[in-house]
Parts: sequence; structure tokens; C-alpha cells
Amino acid sequence: MPRPDVPDLVERARRGEARAVARLISLVENGVEAGAGDAGTADLRAVAAALAPHTGRAHVVGLTGPPGVGKSTSTSVLVGALRAQGRRVGVLAVDPSSPFSGGALLGDRVRMGEHATDEGVFIRSMATRGHLGGLAWATPQALRVLDAAGCDVVLVETVGVGQSEVEVVALADTTVVLLAPGMGDGVQAAKAGILEIADVFVVNKADRDGAAQTVRDLRHMMSLDGGAGGWERPVVPTVAARGEGVDDLVAALDAHRDWMDAVGERRRRRIARAESEIQAITLERVRSRIGDLSGGSGLTGLAERVVAGELDPYGAADELAGTVSGR
Amino acid sequence: MPRPDVPDLVERARRGEARAVARLISLVENGVEAGAGDAGTADLRAVAAALAPHTGRAHVVGLTGPPGVGKSTSTSVLVGALRAQGRRVGVLAVDPSSPFSGGALLGDRVRMGEHATDEGVFIRSMATRGHLGGLAWATPQALRVLDAAGCDVVLVETVGVGQSEVEVVALADTTVVLLAPGMGDGVQAAKAGILEIADVFVVNKADRDGAAQTVRDLRHMMSLDGGAGGWERPVVPTVAARGEGVDDLVAALDAHRDWMDAVGERRRRRIARAESEIQAITLERVRSRIGDLSGGSGLTGLAERVVAGELDPYGAADELAGTVSGR
Repeated sequence: MPRPDVPDLVERARRGEARAVARLISLVENGVEAGAGDAGTADLRAVAAALAPHTGRAHVVGLTGPPGVGKSTSTSVLVGALRAQGRRVGVLAVDPSSPFSGGALLGDRVRMGEHATDEGVFIRSMATRGHLGGLAWATPQALRVLDAAGCDVVLVETVGVGQSEVEVVALADTTVVLLAPGMGDGVQAAKAGILEIADVFVVNKADRDGAAQTVRDLRHMMSLDGGAGGWERPVVPTVAARGEGVDDLVAALDAHRDWMDAVGERRRRRIARAESEIQAITLERVRSRIGDLSGGSGLTGLAERVVAGELDPYGAADELAGTVSGR
Repeated sequence: MPRPDVPDLVERARRGEARAVARLISLVENGVEAGAGDAGTADLRAVAAALAPHTGRAHVVGLTGPPGVGKSTSTSVLVGALRAQGRRVGVLAVDPSSPFSGGALLGDRVRMGEHATDEGVFIRSMATRGHLGGLAWATPQALRVLDAAGCDVVLVETVGVGQSEVEVVALADTTVVLLAPGMGDGVQAAKAGILEIADVFVVNKADRDGAAQTVRDLRHMMSLDGGAGGWERPVVPTVAARGEGVDDLVAALDAHRDWMDAVGERRRRRIARAESEIQAITLERVRSRIGDLSGGSGLTGLAERVVAGELDPYGAADELAGTVSGR
């Protein structure tokens, strides 16, 4: 396969060409999977470098919540509401439990059927391909692709379940936690630490018994919370299947974005996320350099000396750190 | 508190002084918990360096299995059988779910009552003190303390439950998996990946209904397994509460140790473990150096440039790796 022309792809993605967007995300995914020294790694780095000047504009919104709460439906109607206002929208459906990745999943087409032919919407499924680490690494870069492609809002929806939800949602500027009445969700969510990460609550299926009570309970909790940092977290009732309350949700998302920008919170969150990302890449690089060493100065040689009692593991780590850093 | 005289403590531990052994393990635990630059870290390093020449002799045996299978009782009778042969024994009871650590736990005294006053036995409970990582780091060093103290065999028993069992047992030369009849253990153990890690199986409570069947099933599985690497994993029926079968278990442990030494497997396992340990210490050191940096060349400065679009995260990691390694 010929090496991709990354600057050209980025230019075309910036003009909104869906195929270029899809290709860049694939390059990111493949690069994260590739070993050091592989051409895929070079492509990933080229994509990251070419994207950098064109990112930082999109409002990244994460949606999470227990299974069955209506995340997919909510994402779909949210896309519709944002498109009705003329905004460009990206959707990353992240499924830590699925081995399937790519933009052509049947599930996506069916689920997002009404948006599939809309040129103002980019939809992409991402999956683990065997290790969750890969997903955690690829997702921030995929977000940057959609950002550079001119998306005003990027929705990150976690499919599947697990604590990975919390990690993935940590990529967002604004995190929406969806709950539904009568699912014992309050308790479950509290256990999973999911209440703390919410900037906006949605009580979906608000036409069901108990919905009003769930909304009241949450609003009471949030008022006690006292609006930590100046933001009292809103609770928005919706019936996503009928599109009810979705404009209120859009308004809540915009209000949170405006509040963050006014007090500098969005910048603070983005810096903290970039710190985590840079540190993870650096440590991975050190790990990879360690793996490349061989002979007596390599890991196995040092381990042999530890087993022989000639060296302790802390002394061995000193030698290894010196070798890896070239000192 | 005055700084400890580590070489003196190691000398006293080698002569079998229980208080010196306990103090060294405490220094290890405190050192692992301490931040970089703390005196505790220096003590930990001094202990590791002083121990190195005196380690590598003990046979490290890990015992694991589902809750209720009789791990504590089996450990206790195993201590008795080894002591009856005049061997010195160390016991590390590792409880990833408990916040309590130290040698004076009431539970230990009661449980190991008959051995508590035996000068040929060292018993120590280790717990997480809040993070499992700490336990994973401290345990190999604690094993080295008991090794240097002249223990012929060190038993590592995992108390509590969870996947951490597998990690902790990965410290052992020989891993014993305990099962019991009529607990659906076979399936559970297979799920947890616990069958693969076994070098020796014990079917405890062998006087119960179904025990003979469990033993037959396991032996059949092991014969199909074909003795991977030349070791056909034995299945030893025991009734630990009455001491039955414990001499067979001791014989199986010795046979596994002799087989490992004959084919070089013990050395291979120890080198692999030392590799993991050295790599973990090195990466932690890099992480700590990153945390020490500040200003424009530090993590926050780089993250600010990434957020501003002046730099991509991979370029930032290049700069950070260069700074950390002093190049």
C-alpha cells in the first residue's frame, strides 16, 4: 500500500470530505496498534503533527449511563437538533467490548440511518481490537480529526458497559450522564462513581412512572452540592424516542460550554487531558526502548544479575534508566 | 526516629532474629509507600542492596484458590509438615482487600497459633494500605527478606479474592491451586484463568462427596495437557483439617522444585520475574521525574502548547523524554 499523503488528507478533511476524515481516523487506529518502527507509527505521528494547528474549536460532549437508558437514541436525536441549527456534528461511538471498528458497521447505519447521508455529520465506531489501551490512545486523536474537519460539536457515546466508560468520558469537555426512572439507576450510578463526572444530567424516558421523582431527587442533590466551582449541574428530562426535551439538552450543553469558557474551565480541563496523554505516550516510549535493548545492558541481562544476587532491582533500574536515556 | 542501621539489621535477620526480619519488611513496606526523595525510599534501596547477595535460595510457593477452599488451614498444616522435617519456613499472607498490615495481627496469631512461638517460622501479613500497586511492589522485597533470613521455603498465601490473586501468585516458583469438591470450583477456576497458573493441584476436603470425581476429572485434564514442558501437573487429595495428604503435598512441591532446577525452569521464571520488577521500577522512576519538572519544559507547559495547537502530543512526548533523560 502506498504511504498516505497526510497533509493532503488533512486539507481534504478540513474541507469536509468524509472519505478523508475516515482515512485519517483509520491511520490513527492503525498507528496506535503498530509497533515502534512500523510505518503505521510514522503515519500516526504525521497525522498528529498535521492536525495540531487546526484543533481546539469543537465542543466535545461525552454521553454515558447504564445500559438500556437510551444513549443511542439520545445521541441520534441530539445530532438532529444540532443539525437543525446548522451545526456540523461528529459522533464517535466507542465500544470497549466490541472487536469491531470502522465507519461501515451495519449497526451504525441502521441506528443513525437518518443522518447517514447528511454531509454535515461524521459518524465513526471505534472498538478495542483486543486491548482497551489501544482505544484509550486512539480516541483523543480521532477526536482531533473530527475537530479539524470543522465539527462544531463532537459527541462521544460509550456503547457497552464497564468502568472504561468513566475513562472514555474523561475525554470530553462536557459530560452528560443519562439516567432513567425505575431502574435503580441512582444507586447504581453512585456506585460506579458516575454522578461525580456529570456536568449535565438527563432523565430519559421522562414519560414513565417515577420520572418526576427521579428529576426532583437529582435536582435536590445538585442544589445541596451547591454548584461546585460555580456550575449548578442541570437535570434535563427528555423522551428521546419522541424528541422531547432535546432542545433543552442542547441549551444545557451550550450553557455549560459558555460557563467553562467564561471561567477558564474548558482550558483547564484540556490542559489536564493533554498532560495525561503526553505522559502516557512518554512512558510507552520508554517501555518500547527498554524492549529494544538486548545483551548485558538490556532487561534480560540485568534480570540475570539480579537473580544471581549481583545486583538489586533498584540498582538494575538505575542502570536501565541510564541506558535508555543515553547517559 | 533514628535512621535504621540496614547492614546490621540484615546481619541479624540472617542469624534468624525475628525482630530484625519484621523491621526489614516494615522498611520495605514504608519505602514503597514513600514518595521519591523521602527517607523511606533511601531505606528501601539500602535494604534491597544489602539483601541482594543473600537471596535466591528459598523455594517460593504460592497458594491460591477460591474462598472457602481451606487455604489458611492448608498453609498452617504445610508449615507443620515442613517444620517436622527441620526446614525453616516463611509465610506471607497477602490480603489485597484488607487495609491492615504488620506482623501482630490477631488473625495471624489465632490462625497460626501453634507456630507463633516457633523460632523456625516467620509469619507476616501484608495488605494494600490503600493501593494494590503498593502490595505488588512490596511483596517481592518482603520475599527477599525471608529468603535472606534463611527460610528454606516461603509460602505466599493470598487471603481475600480477586484477580490480584493471579498477580500475587506470579511471584512464586511453584504455584499451588486449591480446589474443593462440590463448589463448582472447576468452572469458576477455569473462568478465572486459575487452572493455567497451577503447577500443583490440591483437592482439599477430599473426604467429601464428589472429591474422587473432582480428582479424576482434574487428572484426566492434566493427562490431556500432556505435561507441558515435561511436567505433568499432579493432583493431590488432602483433608487439611486432619493433616491428611499433606506429606504428599510436600513431596509434590519438592518434586516440582527438583524438576525446575533440572531443566533450568526455576532460573527462567526468576529472570522473567526480575525483568517485570526492574521494568516497573524504571517506569515509576520516569513517571516521578516527569512529576518533578515544572515550567515550560514540564508537563503542564507542554500540555499548554498542545492545547494551543503549537505542538502535537507525540512531539510533546519527544521533548519530555529528552528533558527527563537529560539530553
